[in-house]
Amino acid sequence: MGQRLSLCLVGVDIGGTKLATVVADANGQILNKVRQPTESHRGFEHAIKLIVDMIDQLLHLEQFTRDQISAIGISCGGPLDTKTGVVYSPPNLPDWDAIPLADIVESEFKIRPVIENDANAGALAEWRFGAGRGYNHVVFMTMSTGIGAGIVVDGRILHGASDCAGEVGHQVLIPNGPVCGCGNRGCLEAICSGPAIAQRAQEKVRKNPHTKILDLVDDNIEAIRSEEVLEAAKSADPLALDLIHEISFYMGWGIANLVNIINPDIVLIGTIAVAAGDLLLDPIRRTVLEMSMQRPGEIVKIMPAQLGQQIGDLAAISLVV
Amino acid sequence: MGQRLSLCLVGVDIGGTKLATVVADANGQILNKVRQPTESHRGFEHAIKLIVDMIDQLLHLEQFTRDQISAIGISCGGPLDTKTGVVYSPPNLPDWDAIPLADIVESEFKIRPVIENDANAGALAEWRFGAGRGYNHVVFMTMSTGIGAGIVVDGRILHGASDCAGEVGHQVLIPNGPVCGCGNRGCLEAICSGPAIAQRAQEKVRKNPHTKILDLVDDNIEAIRSEEVLEAAKSADPLALDLIHEISFYMGWGIANLVNIINPDIVLIGTIAVAAGDLLLDPIRRTVLEMSMQRPGEIVKIMPAQLGQQIGDLAAISLVV
Repeated sequence: MGQRLSLCLVGVDIGGTKLATVVADANGQILNKVRQPTESHRGFEHAIKLIVDMIDQLLHLEQFTRDQISAIGISCGGPLDTKTGVVYSPPNLPDWDAIPLADIVESEFKIRPVIENDANAGALAEWRFGAGRGYNHVVFMTMSTGIGAGIVVDGRILHGASDCAGEVGHQVLIPNGPVCGCGNRGCLEAICSGPAIAQRAQEKVRKNPHTKILDLVDDNIEAIRSEEVLEAAKSADPLALDLIHEISFYMGWGIANLVNIINPDIVLIGTIAVAAGDLLLDPIRRTVLEMSMQRPGEIVKIMPAQLGQQIGDLAAISLVV
Repeated sequence: MGQRLSLCLVGVDIGGTKLATVVADANGQILNKVRQPTESHRGFEHAIKLIVDMIDQLLHLEQFTRDQISAIGISCGGPLDTKTGVVYSPPNLPDWDAIPLADIVESEFKIRPVIENDANAGALAEWRFGAGRGYNHVVFMTMSTGIGAGIVVDGRILHGASDCAGEVGHQVLIPNGPVCGCGNRGCLEAICSGPAIAQRAQEKVRKNPHTKILDLVDDNIEAIRSEEVLEAAKSADPLALDLIHEISFYMGWGIANLVNIINPDIVLIGTIAVAAGDLLLDPIRRTVLEMSMQRPGEIVKIMPAQLGQQIGDLAAISLVV
């Protein structure tokens, strides 16, 4: 086996559950990847050691040496500072308190990595490789454990003054509403995230147990997640449909506000919206049209994200293609 | 009197009440200006004839000829299309229905003008000449007859997909709230614009006539405007202070949502906020800090706009400097 002559790109996706590392050719075509559990309880030094080993392993498998790496892109949960490359205690990596990730990686590989939060990197990936291709103003919204967004304008991420732009999930819709993880009340995320949907469903089922949702969890109300709500709604369970109706109203309201403020061509929604499809997206679309101004509301497309499980790998690579 | 040798810039500010035209040197230093009433009931052809005459008059006064104009900037109420230079029925210029303003001006002066809506041009002016100098992420919010915003990121206006970005006044805060001019309900503008404040004040005064506001209008409730509310609040009138408290809550809420979505360095607020000063701005600042996420909320400055009456002139010139 010989040595390759070309350069390569390295992408690293750092999540609370797993670490993924990919090596790609200069065009961003992924050649190989490796995954490992993050074991976040073992701290950031353990994770960084794993990442370095995974990169070396991939380089070896694909017959590259370290000095053939032309760029390294890292997608990681925020908050983080893209200029200094410092990561500040992401909720899913609680031990990562002001970690100078860019410095650490640079000292190891002698190349400065590009570091970006996962929602922003995901938006760039959807714009470059996914459902956002060909649009100038793309929003990618996560809708799973949390609700966040990356905003891409003319191919560039809108970072904001302190890398905090895109926190659409923390716009307040109900000032005295449910408590949010961020400490405020009534944020979109506190109403429509996966855990919020689950909690809302559990409360409704306690009051009205005549629902297919209960069958799906063997009558264990505490086990209800957003997945069961979607499954029951797909078989026309009235309680589940009622919940979908509520969720889509608040999602549509939050997206309408976003549409009025930044006037995107397309809003792509991840995980839960991908699983639910038009069952959730159609009422969201109707609400957006009703609650936004006419011109931006008529223009914007509301679609499921396209890259699915692949998004982490492509997100990291899209930072450096 | 001799002929000047240098080139000049021309700025045109088209409002529903008045037209203003300025001529500036190549650095944007305003040399002279002319104003005329728009007389919008006389239609767009009349206004365009006035504008052409005003420009010629200014050129003559400042000893330039038409072929010394290096650029023309036009600030006008939206909606309009910045790419085609077509203006679509601004609320204050109802007769301007799909007027190809850029084409008309180009055919007259043989130079393609830059056309921008007034909130965006105002934001650029505040960024270049006013309170936004030195910041990378600047929002300029109008707060008078309507509430809108221009967003400047790294010195460039954020236009959105169809020149509609910045409609922060039409984010919905109260889904069943007061009817807005846009046709929706409960928009920020329907709660906090000048006319909305006046209406809210009139309703309160009808229920509770023990207020200094009534003295300021010689007991004519219908004559109450936002100006009287501010004046009474400055002398600590309880009803007026109560209103200021309400208005600042909704303004702060709307700005907090904006701060979470685009993470600006500074938000500059015009007219009413300039007149009210910290009486209105301090409670707005407290609400923004409470209702936005910690990092973007701590960074953002909420300040009165700086350019005042001058903004129209500078807005038009800032498009072409």
